Amino acid sequence: MQRLKCIISYDGSAFSGYQVQPNRRTVQAVIEDALQKMHKGEFIRIHASGRTDAGVHAIGQVIHFDSPLAIPANRWKVALNSLLPDEIVVKDVQKTHSDFHARFDVISKEYQYKILLKRDRDVFLRHYVHHVPHSLDYIAMKEAIKYFIGTKDFSSFCSAKTEIEDKIRTVYEIEFFEESDMLTFRFVGNGFLYNMVRIMVGTILEVGLGYRSSKEIVTILEMKDRTKAGKTAPSHGLYLWKVNYNN
Amino acid sequence: MQRLKCIISYDGSAFSGYQVQPNRRTVQAVIEDALQKMHKGEFIRIHASGRTDAGVHAIGQVIHFDSPLAIPANRWKVALNSLLPDEIVVKDVQKTHSDFHARFDVISKEYQYKILLKRDRDVFLRHYVHHVPHSLDYIAMKEAIKYFIGTKDFSSFCSAKTEIEDKIRTVYEIEFFEESDMLTFRFVGNGFLYNMVRIMVGTILEVGLGYRSSKEIVTILEMKDRTKAGKTAPSHGLYLWKVNYNN
Repeated sequence: MQRLKCIISYDGSAFSGYQVQPNRRTVQAVIEDALQKMHKGEFIRIHASGRTDAGVHAIGQVIHFDSPLAIPANRWKVALNSLLPDEIVVKDVQKTHSDFHARFDVISKEYQYKILLKRDRDVFLRHYVHHVPHSLDYIAMKEAIKYFIGTKDFSSFCSAKTEIEDKIRTVYEIEFFEESDMLTFRFVGNGFLYNMVRIMVGTILEVGLGYRSSKEIVTILEMKDRTKAGKTAPSHGLYLWKVNYNN
Repeated sequence: MQRLKCIISYDGSAFSGYQVQPNRRTVQAVIEDALQKMHKGEFIRIHASGRTDAGVHAIGQVIHFDSPLAIPANRWKVALNSLLPDEIVVKDVQKTHSDFHARFDVISKEYQYKILLKRDRDVFLRHYVHHVPHSLDYIAMKEAIKYFIGTKDFSSFCSAKTEIEDKIRTVYEIEFFEESDMLTFRFVGNGFLYNMVRIMVGTILEVGLGYRSSKEIVTILEMKDRTKAGKTAPSHGLYLWKVNYNN
């Protein structure tokens, strides 16, 4: 038996999210199906660094699983990609130690969020960016993001649909940069609550559009009330970019 | 009554081609539906520079239509875009003279064809590029494209499924350039037969892969026989890029 760690990328517009659900095409189900084919019908459970919602993309999602097959690591990637549909690709497969866990061993995660600023929509990017045809106040936005940095209770930035009780997370880094009509946000933290990145983006955009002042972020955080923060930005601009582990 | 000329862009993966067909979602049908809404139920026929097949994209398709509405040209664009789905966008609307015709007045057309050369597939580009994970002999390909330039009988590079009898076309320009794993072909000609660009690309790729010599193009053209040319490259790499008219 060997444990394998894979880095995978997928187009979220092709799936009903990551996690297995009855009668839905999910990322987990499609990968487990491919593994079952490789294992002559034997079911192989995979474990990811975390779920992604319907529409959310992944550039560097990490999964692990155990296999009795004696396949060299460099052959796993080719074998899996030949069995997976075009909407998923395995970018890397490594053998790992038997107590590595893709979810429990996460040190930090990076998400990116992409916004198209052009006035006209781009028909080719409709599933891959959030279209905001308005100018944004970058100075106010830079001010706003500072208030998120650090270890805080993010209850106001978490969907009500969650069972997790501990809403304290540490955000290490938020930045944004513009490159030919595309505004990209980078978020790095030790973990993110359900919809947390999308609610932060939605709220930062409301600051950028002048609907809120940047200082409101402080009050919103203090109130620990989801209804005080901004709208949840759409899923299709969000990318799980990278998952970091202790070596 | 005024005649309007529009430049439109669409994602071919969302439609069963350009031309109206029963029970299919086509580009023409969707635009005519939007116009019918604007004209309170009155049907407005549109005319394009030419059809595009299912899966083929457009950056600069041109259409014209006549309307009795007294809307200034700059308001037409916003009105139409608000009624069209996300997969189509109107980029420009101009009033034109009453004998302008989007198809009959074409002077030349430009198509582009995009090929992803990376070894791994890109899940986000699966509808937008043709994936060729092999190295190509650019010198042989450059040699091959020269034989297409000029006024020739392109019977060998035309789908058998066509009613057009005159297979003589003039190709003004073919070039290709590589930019970070993306190979782009540009084709400019006075007109292109059914599947002509895709069969030329398929054949040039077979030269690039070493399956054929570049000089074979000369013989293939002379034989006026579709079965002698290469495979038709997939529709999803093809873009109708620009349509040129007199002034």
